[in-house]
Amino acid sequence: MNATPKATGPNSTGKLLYAQSGGVTAVINATAGAVIETCRRHKINVYAARNGILGALREDLIDTSKESTSAIRALAHTPGGAFGSCRVKLKSLEDDRAKYERLIEVFRAHDIRWFLYNGGNDSADTALKLSKLGKATGYDIRCIGVPKTVDNDLAVTDCCPGFGSVAKYTAVSLRECALDVTSMMDTSTKVFVMEVMGRHAGWIAAAAGLAGAGRDDAPHVILFPELTFDEEKFLARVRETVDRVGCCVVAASEGIRYADGRFVADAHAGTDAFGHTQLGGVAPALAGMVRAKLKLKTHWALPDYLQRSARHIASKTDVEQAQAVGRAAVEYALAGENAVMPVIKRVSDSPYRWKIEMAKLDQIANREKKLPRAYVTKDGFHVTAAARRYLSPLIDGEAPPPFGPDGLPKYVALKNAAVRKKLPPFETAG
Amino acid sequence: MNATPKATGPNSTGKLLYAQSGGVTAVINATAGAVIETCRRHKINVYAARNGILGALREDLIDTSKESTSAIRALAHTPGGAFGSCRVKLKSLEDDRAKYERLIEVFRAHDIRWFLYNGGNDSADTALKLSKLGKATGYDIRCIGVPKTVDNDLAVTDCCPGFGSVAKYTAVSLRECALDVTSMMDTSTKVFVMEVMGRHAGWIAAAAGLAGAGRDDAPHVILFPELTFDEEKFLARVRETVDRVGCCVVAASEGIRYADGRFVADAHAGTDAFGHTQLGGVAPALAGMVRAKLKLKTHWALPDYLQRSARHIASKTDVEQAQAVGRAAVEYALAGENAVMPVIKRVSDSPYRWKIEMAKLDQIANREKKLPRAYVTKDGFHVTAAARRYLSPLIDGEAPPPFGPDGLPKYVALKNAAVRKKLPPFETAG
Repeated sequence: MNATPKATGPNSTGKLLYAQSGGVTAVINATAGAVIETCRRHKINVYAARNGILGALREDLIDTSKESTSAIRALAHTPGGAFGSCRVKLKSLEDDRAKYERLIEVFRAHDIRWFLYNGGNDSADTALKLSKLGKATGYDIRCIGVPKTVDNDLAVTDCCPGFGSVAKYTAVSLRECALDVTSMMDTSTKVFVMEVMGRHAGWIAAAAGLAGAGRDDAPHVILFPELTFDEEKFLARVRETVDRVGCCVVAASEGIRYADGRFVADAHAGTDAFGHTQLGGVAPALAGMVRAKLKLKTHWALPDYLQRSARHIASKTDVEQAQAVGRAAVEYALAGENAVMPVIKRVSDSPYRWKIEMAKLDQIANREKKLPRAYVTKDGFHVTAAARRYLSPLIDGEAPPPFGPDGLPKYVALKNAAVRKKLPPFETAG
Repeated sequence: MNATPKATGPNSTGKLLYAQSGGVTAVINATAGAVIETCRRHKINVYAARNGILGALREDLIDTSKESTSAIRALAHTPGGAFGSCRVKLKSLEDDRAKYERLIEVFRAHDIRWFLYNGGNDSADTALKLSKLGKATGYDIRCIGVPKTVDNDLAVTDCCPGFGSVAKYTAVSLRECALDVTSMMDTSTKVFVMEVMGRHAGWIAAAAGLAGAGRDDAPHVILFPELTFDEEKFLARVRETVDRVGCCVVAASEGIRYADGRFVADAHAGTDAFGHTQLGGVAPALAGMVRAKLKLKTHWALPDYLQRSARHIASKTDVEQAQAVGRAAVEYALAGENAVMPVIKRVSDSPYRWKIEMAKLDQIANREKKLPRAYVTKDGFHVTAAARRYLSPLIDGEAPPPFGPDGLPKYVALKNAAVRKKLPPFETAG
């Protein structure tokens, strides 16, 4: 381990800044809660950036010391992003130099000595650049990436906090609606399509495959973004499944494309009777295709944000991993590490064992881990036993939130008290 | 109570036939399980019609005595329709005489003395007609309706088994995705639309209102099928909400219509680039409208069958009521009642107390209970305190299914062993 920064220790005024980045998940707040609790044990105050990196640029910081112990504990079971997140990607140091410099200026103004950036590969890249700029400008800042993405597409780590819960939601929901479809197939819907997230990587689509194990179990067809969508083969498989099973349940990734590279969802976008562009999806496109070509009754579902915010059906494994990376990130930071990320290392599949290891951000930044071809059956329509071995432990265990007497989960809303600004405003646009 | 039919008692060979009808729910099998368990205590064998009334017409019956005690018990936590259901509505006695007579013939061939039809107002009507035909033809059959519908639109009963669970799913999901939207609204989605079931009655849409209580809590706008959709007013309300809150979360019933009677979903149906009719929905139509007119970033969800099959987030109250109507229906049948339905009578709102009462099928058949105007705020965009008092107890309590080591709910698949046929085939088409 490197030398720790000067500002550390119980008498220090140095703060740790935590920021959430990109699409939120059912368990990103579990990471946040673990970060804050670990810091409190070390007597370090945590500032949070409101709305992710934008808050850091705008000097819009939240003082988490104003939150009660019970409120911070409740983050473990509250979905969404408690401090706000944003979809802002900083460009290269050259192209966005003013922004990177502003961040260092804000860090300096508030004596921020550790920066934890909770996100995907873009955030890992930003954290890496900041650590470099800190070194170059002589400001002692330790930048740690903290993994989070429902897409499960980060390099090095065995899996990503956030994924296990969306995977569990997807497999459970698919198993449930398949029972519905099967009950009614004699006179009603024959083909049901459920669209899942994952524009570039088919991890969530693969998780749908856990809903059934036998040849005739739903899902009968899975469509992965890593494979070219072949309409003819797809329709033939649907036809054959309906003939054999009586219905066909399809799990389709939002990101499937035709051979020419067009997204299936975009290719089928049309114009409605009012001249508005139809906001399509893969599910309605596939259902329309089946209805037009096979003349079968279809239904489709598009759970969208419901899938990534469904804390009520979160995976216990996922919650535990989300907390573990939060704790480890703080320990790494306080130990003086820089430009690293705690990652999940799988020790064994069954029984499932895992541990946290340290990885370098430059191994993670801007890389994307797609579903291995070995996880997809030869015909391209389902998952293999290897995929099941990988996926199954990630959805293991339930960790339901507490429910109130009103029948609803008791999710916490933080006070999010602002830290007094010390700097002139900064224009974040552009 | 009337005299009991001859065939009853421990030495009888008389059977009870149970059939599921229409769209299935998360708890219709809880009713089925209660029916079978109650009959087993009375030493009465239960036959189930495969795929609802079609199975009865086709003499395709299932012998539930082949199922183990634990399998029947597991019905309490298994969604879908365990014996299959169908969307077949019998017409008047005159128009469909051959079918009604066939049913009596099947009852006679298998010594079916009690018929329990688990469905909505159509099924109540069928059960009523069969009871009349039984009397007219001198065949002693007792027909009992058993309430079930996610739409909550049955007359007389205070609520319908199946509704409480979809209401809970809707309120929980909306609360969760609202946290997601709120976290990201600074740079991402400003308007989120969640489409819910309920083509004619706005009960499920109203349940979405339970997700928040304050003025600025989601959902900010609810669209009910009982009220005319006014595009201008809707867009103004969305605009105003985004300006005030930063985002706007909309819960929209699939059945909203324009003043001229057209469904909003149909009015916006278009043609895709391939010339296929777009299988629209209200959610994409509203999202398209907001994007075109207000130039705001939108997202939408359409959970479709997921909402009515989500046994994992069922309401405990709903499960208990589903079981109670099943038990009561058997007791009524064995006591010799005819053309009745067990209904739920609310005794008090808070603490919530309810009991089962007997209602006449002719008070229920073919009627539809819409959301009272008093449950909707004057502006038409939210629910009132009266609606909350009614709805809140129905989503109270959790009743999660058991989960396996694979992280998935352990739903039961019955053997569904067929009863040997005794009659020539019957043409059910037409």
